[in-house]
Order: sequence, then structure tokens, then C-alpha cells
Amino acid sequence: MNRHPNSAERTRLRREPQRGSHDPSLIRDIIDSALICHLGLTDHDGHPLVIPTIHARVDDVLYVHGSAASRTLRRLATGIDACCTVTQLDGIVVARSGFWSSMNYRSVMVFGPARLLTDAEEILLALDAIVDHVLPGRSAEIRRPTAKELAATKVIALPIDAASSKVRTGPPNDDPDDLDSSVWAGTVPLQIVAASPVPAPNLPAGVSLPPSVDTMTSLFRRR
Amino acid sequence: MNRHPNSAERTRLRREPQRGSHDPSLIRDIIDSALICHLGLTDHDGHPLVIPTIHARVDDVLYVHGSAASRTLRRLATGIDACCTVTQLDGIVVARSGFWSSMNYRSVMVFGPARLLTDAEEILLALDAIVDHVLPGRSAEIRRPTAKELAATKVIALPIDAASSKVRTGPPNDDPDDLDSSVWAGTVPLQIVAASPVPAPNLPAGVSLPPSVDTMTSLFRRR
Repeated sequence: MNRHPNSAERTRLRREPQRGSHDPSLIRDIIDSALICHLGLTDHDGHPLVIPTIHARVDDVLYVHGSAASRTLRRLATGIDACCTVTQLDGIVVARSGFWSSMNYRSVMVFGPARLLTDAEEILLALDAIVDHVLPGRSAEIRRPTAKELAATKVIALPIDAASSKVRTGPPNDDPDDLDSSVWAGTVPLQIVAASPVPAPNLPAGVSLPPSVDTMTSLFRRR
Repeated sequence: MNRHPNSAERTRLRREPQRGSHDPSLIRDIIDSALICHLGLTDHDGHPLVIPTIHARVDDVLYVHGSAASRTLRRLATGIDACCTVTQLDGIVVARSGFWSSMNYRSVMVFGPARLLTDAEEILLALDAIVDHVLPGRSAEIRRPTAKELAATKVIALPIDAASSKVRTGPPNDDPDDLDSSVWAGTVPLQIVAASPVPAPNLPAGVSLPPSVDTMTSLFRRR
């Protein structure tokens, strides 16, 4: 199922393999729970570029989108290789030394050739998925994209069958020689929290908060 | 001051230039306030890789570090080009259509040739800066790195003089045709929040929370 000839080699976990996994359900969970990803590609001179962008997953495909006029989207549209990394930061690992200090996190790297969507149905499916990724159910609350909007947008797919995840959890792994020290050690949990929605200044009176925004703020309520 | 021949061209803002800036103080603020970055490079076959990692800034230099055994660090040590992107997600922009929906964010892209640190003094300065980036003042609370730890670590510098920022703030910019609709529009502010520190299970009784952790949790208190 690897669509890219080198994908098995590229996704082989080398550093700290005990943190790594190719478990598809874990990979999907991490992708779905992160609001944005960082998309890596090379420009026409071979220089790396890393772009933050919204993504969405449908089955084993990761979608990203952008302006049809964007250099990055036009370059991805040629089918070049890309690497999309999704990172959830879960905490700070405060060790008794700098060397053993770390972060708790869940991350996924997706590798593969970018595929420009050309099928109208798949484009609409992907755009709805991107809207719903951030605000569950939002695509059903809003109007459909116009022909002009569709013409101004490019959607790119990456196969997530060539992906790997890394997860770190738990307390610091201190050097045994440091355990008698009087230096504090532990973790500081982190999470992204949503504050109360702020209505647009031009929102007519009486328009109430939709279910999609309610769902989103519930998901990002402080635990 | 551009150390890379193409850096002015590479950092030229094209898409939505009204969101972009080369203001050094804004770039520094965004870099300093984000806990992690996403570092992009190409592997030996020219494939892009995007790695989440902790960073720190000292003056106009961005430092990242990693295991001396890591393929990525060894490749960066050869002086290849890298792109380091720092992204702070500030909110969800809920427009009346998918097309105009967006995120509020602050991001910086730093481009440049990676430089492997070889000077012992600069290495220690960079490692302290990385520790203190996450936990302000932590480097003064912990022991110094050992010779073995230093031998196992590589530190890479990127010049931040070739950097650009993009910032989006404020309410949605809806299509004027949608303003009469009864669809809710606005923003949902987001922030990273720290929960109460969790002591390590092996922490001796009576070791109190250090100032560095107190400072960090104050910075990441819910606003």
C-alpha cells in the first residue's frame, strides 16, 4: 500500500524508536485532534519551506488547501514530495538536568507525493472536511462554495499510509546520579483552550451560536 | 546582513502581503513566545522532512539541538539550508462561508544555512538558552551539562536576519453578499494553558516548586 517507493525507508523510526509507532489508529487520532499541521516541501531551487496550514483527514488521505495563486500550492500541484507534520504539545518535562528535560507530545509525520485534486466531487468533499475538521458540522451550517471560490482554491492530497508517529508521555527519565539532588522534577501539562466565542462586529442581533462552535469549544474546554 | 545569497528573495512576502512583516522586534516576539518550532530540511535524496523541536533565540541567532547520533542533526551539521517555522495559533476565524473562514495566528519563517556549533562557550550558551526558553531561569537551578552529555549533543544555529512574519488578527472578512445571512460569524480565541505542575513520582518529600516553573505557569495562565 505504500504509494511512494521510498516511503517505508523514509518512515523507519531511528531515534528513540521506543517512542515511535506505525499504528494507523494512533496516527489518525493525532492527525484528527490537531488543529493545524506544518507542511514541508522544497522550492524550485531545492530549499526547504515549512508552512503552517489547516488540514483534514478522510480515511487514509490528508488534505490541505490554499490559494490557487500561491507559489506553494502551484508547486505542490506538480506532484513533488511533501512532508506534513502534526504536533500536539502535551506538557513540559522538567528534569533535574537540561540533558534529560524534554516535552511530552504526540506527533505524526506524513510523507508522500502531493496529488492535486481535479475531481469536483473530491474537491468539495475535501473542502467540507477541512471546514469540519476545525468546527465539527460547520459545512452543513454554511452555504456551498461558489464557482469563483472553487476556481481560486487548490486542494492537495497526501496519502497517510506512509506515516509514523512519535509519542512521549510521563515523568522525566533523570540520570540516576541526579535522583538525590534537591532540584524539583516533574511535568507541567499543557493544552490548547478555547475562550468564549466573540461575535463579529457586523453580526445581526439575534443570531445565536451554532452547534459547530459549541462542539468546538466543548472539545477545547479546560480539562 | 543577509548571509544567504537568496534570502531576500526567499523571504519576500507574496501571498497576502498585508499580513506580512520583516519587523525584527515582531519576529523576535513571535519566536520567543512559542514553545516549539517546526524545522524543515531535505534528506540526502532531496525529500523534505519537518521535525518539531524546542528552539531558543539569542540576539539574531536561532538555536536548535538534538542527539549527535540523529540523522537530522548530522545532516544539518553539513551546513545545508533549513527553514524553521514558528507558529502561534491565536484563534479560529468563523466566517459565514468556508472560503473566508481562517485562523488567527502569528508565524515566523526563518531561512538559512545551518551552522554546527563547535565553540564550547557558544554551545553552553545555546543549551542554557534552550532550557531557559521553556522554563525561564531554569539553567541556574540545575547542574551544568557533563562532558558525556555535551559529546552526545549537537547544536545548530540559524541566522534570523533572513526571516519573515505573518500575522492575522480580528474578525472574519466575509463576502459582502453573505452579510445579511442568518449564519453566525465571529472568532474563537485559543491559547495554550498550563495546568498545575505534577511532581515526579521519585521526587523526595519537601522539594518545593522552583521559580522557573512558577514563572512558566504564570506565563501560560488562562487569560
